[in-house]
Amino acid sequence: MTMTPLHIWMGYAAGTLTTIAFLPQVLHVWHTKRAEDLHLGTLVSFTVGVALWLTYGLLTRQEPVILANAVTLALQAVIIFLKLRYARAAKHGSGQGDHPGKQS
Amino acid sequence: MTMTPLHIWMGYAAGTLTTIAFLPQVLHVWHTKRAEDLHLGTLVSFTVGVALWLTYGLLTRQEPVILANAVTLALQAVIIFLKLRYARAAKHGSGQGDHPGKQS
Repeated sequence: MTMTPLHIWMGYAAGTLTTIAFLPQVLHVWHTKRAEDLHLGTLVSFTVGVALWLTYGLLTRQEPVILANAVTLALQAVIIFLKLRYARAAKHGSGQGDHPGKQS
Repeated sequence: MTMTPLHIWMGYAAGTLTTIAFLPQVLHVWHTKRAEDLHLGTLVSFTVGVALWLTYGLLTRQEPVILANAVTLALQAVIIFLKLRYARAAKHGSGQGDHPGKQS
């Protein structure tokens, strides 16, 4: 397989969209302090899969695949962290998170 | 780039995880009739990105990339459809969906 500029451009366009897609989700969870509707199994399975896509990209030397999955992996880790944090806060307290940006 | 059996195996493992990840999310939204915490911009951007990854897979002839993204595209479409449906039902009615599997 030869990577042409079109292939690389398409990979970067795809990777940009599937990566930045999770930025508003991170902010949404952060602001609402809610992630109940996000299924934990989905988040974990998707994150492990993204780690494997990253490995695949490294093995096959596809830069768009490497970059997109490295950033997505980080964003998914943040979403899982926030979900677990707010779930624990809801169990032990008022149902609200406890970070400084807390809303009434 | 030459695709070895290890590359292909890794791609299928990654694709299986990032694809089946969305099955429990579809079922979760279906059963709870809620998708408020799922950001619509995230769903749309991710879905368009997945369509581009599918195109990338077709252009570069990577079977694991093609298969994983084709199935993921279908699952994302279902999630978006259900989210919009339940959001509309919540606006016009009791906050519950109206499909036959409706829970009290």
